[in-house]
Amino acid sequence: MDRRRLPLRVKGTDMRTIDYHDGVITLIDQTQLPQAEEMLRIDTVEELVAAIKRLSVRGAPALGVAGAYGVALAARIHDPGTTAFDEAVSMIRDARPTAVNLAHTVDRLKSLVADGAAALEVEAHAIRDEELAASLAMGDLGADLVLALTGVEAPRIMTICNTGGLAAVERGTALAVIQTLHERNALTEAIPLETRPLLQGSRLTTWELQRMGAPFRLVVDSAGPFLLTQGAADAVLIGADRIAANGDTANKIGSLSLALGAARAGVPFIVVAPESTVDMATLVGADIEVEDRGADEVTSIRGTPVAPPGTHAINPAFDVTPVDLITALVTERRIVRFDHGAAL
Amino acid sequence: MDRRRLPLRVKGTDMRTIDYHDGVITLIDQTQLPQAEEMLRIDTVEELVAAIKRLSVRGAPALGVAGAYGVALAARIHDPGTTAFDEAVSMIRDARPTAVNLAHTVDRLKSLVADGAAALEVEAHAIRDEELAASLAMGDLGADLVLALTGVEAPRIMTICNTGGLAAVERGTALAVIQTLHERNALTEAIPLETRPLLQGSRLTTWELQRMGAPFRLVVDSAGPFLLTQGAADAVLIGADRIAANGDTANKIGSLSLALGAARAGVPFIVVAPESTVDMATLVGADIEVEDRGADEVTSIRGTPVAPPGTHAINPAFDVTPVDLITALVTERRIVRFDHGAAL
Repeated sequence: MDRRRLPLRVKGTDMRTIDYHDGVITLIDQTQLPQAEEMLRIDTVEELVAAIKRLSVRGAPALGVAGAYGVALAARIHDPGTTAFDEAVSMIRDARPTAVNLAHTVDRLKSLVADGAAALEVEAHAIRDEELAASLAMGDLGADLVLALTGVEAPRIMTICNTGGLAAVERGTALAVIQTLHERNALTEAIPLETRPLLQGSRLTTWELQRMGAPFRLVVDSAGPFLLTQGAADAVLIGADRIAANGDTANKIGSLSLALGAARAGVPFIVVAPESTVDMATLVGADIEVEDRGADEVTSIRGTPVAPPGTHAINPAFDVTPVDLITALVTERRIVRFDHGAAL
Repeated sequence: MDRRRLPLRVKGTDMRTIDYHDGVITLIDQTQLPQAEEMLRIDTVEELVAAIKRLSVRGAPALGVAGAYGVALAARIHDPGTTAFDEAVSMIRDARPTAVNLAHTVDRLKSLVADGAAALEVEAHAIRDEELAASLAMGDLGADLVLALTGVEAPRIMTICNTGGLAAVERGTALAVIQTLHERNALTEAIPLETRPLLQGSRLTTWELQRMGAPFRLVVDSAGPFLLTQGAADAVLIGADRIAANGDTANKIGSLSLALGAARAGVPFIVVAPESTVDMATLVGADIEVEDRGADEVTSIRGTPVAPPGTHAINPAFDVTPVDLITALVTERRIVRFDHGAAL
């Protein structure tokens, strides 16, 4: 057996997407899910950078922790202060240029280099623990809010993309709320959207829901808004890539459709995201530039072509939901009721 | 080479999805598109029934013509009036129980059995020609309406599913309007949605747009509403499975999302469908029962599994768009301006 690829041994909900022990980073290889469940065992900076680039680890909080552990790892291999160390740290920082959390935690660790390698490991673990605590807090605050808003004992929750432990360390954001409801015996079912083009909903969220033992039914993205108008869900929960100062929220493509469906159906539409997602320097959603990820993800699915050769596509990576369609934002330390006119 | 499978020789826009000559039905095998372009050559009732069941031919108008030609074919093989003839006709009629057009044209032909086999062929060709004329009329009326409503010289049109010649004989319904605009040099681009779960948009509509030489860009379903709010299209055109007496319209899942996006963006949302789609016996959309097509179409795509084993799904085949979200209905003989309070 390849010593770098180990079967995922931890069952149940107590798995960590990423962790570190004695110079070895372990992370769940998300490119293989759900067909294979494997942990990557990483002990060089080059391997970590490759894993980040091929999306074996993804999601803002998980990338932040990966960056922190990466700097701790680099300090074991290279003497901090040398050019080799600086180059290794730059490689990590640049592995995913759009991932703000990655650059942020790398910089946070770099500022402690003078304190030595052991101090870096302590700080990296602290970042991991902050993420864990934030997910727990969002889960609790969000579950309380959902129960209060819906007035239902065991609500049915619609969601999109993967916002669970796989995007964080454990539990995540919107899916953390679903997990908390399930742990309180207060979830009738989750309804995840498959989330084209990359199918994070059908590949990853279903896998997490199965592991936590939560009942769920998968739907194609375009069925979400219709099912809301048919009364199939009591609330919609989504994560966020970036939240503008006025509350407009950028998130996975398809979030706006769900918001329009929720508004039509009179169903609460709740954003769950850490404080670090709020970007007060971006005044409104229209200021957020939407990246186009190219035609290939649309014209073929998991390697199978689904459109004639030469087909062009528009492939926005995310959309922007205007704040007037958002009931509330839940972070690790507050609930912002946009529907009551509250502001960030 | 299998004599029953011929390469598609007709290029450009003058292809017929289905036709008949001297006891032989020819039809484009839609299950092979866009990977292979093949005509099926059918000279037995059993082959026709098999082709209908495996969706080699689909779409209400195309199925209606297939049924008519099937009865004409049966009358060549069996003496009308015999039990064998009646059994063959029943097999055709029952090949797709939910296809109202199929039963309708089979019954129309059956009522002429006493006039002989030649009369049946004349009537079947008449049904084909009625479909052609209806598509041309819808294309012209629809193009006029789109240009008037948008005030744009060459509009950009968003659409869903396959509503083109492949669903009819030539040209179709919503896609007929796009084709007419293109022929008038009055189309900037078409924006077809891929239309999960069966991908009729990415597999079939793109193929038709390429053949007619119309510019287009494909998008995932959930990007449609967002792109509307970004001003990416000037109008939305859809077909219809059934239109209730109040104007509520059942069509492919995802149509309602587009209607919500169009309403938010202030973009005209137009239904294009033949008069035969209007069902005055169904008073409102809520009376239309939505068929669930099971989990398999959601959990695997073109044979590739995309969700963990055991994943359940909700898979509504179509949705219902309330009439307040519909600007107008275009049929082969009228325009019904719902936005002006007009009624069916």
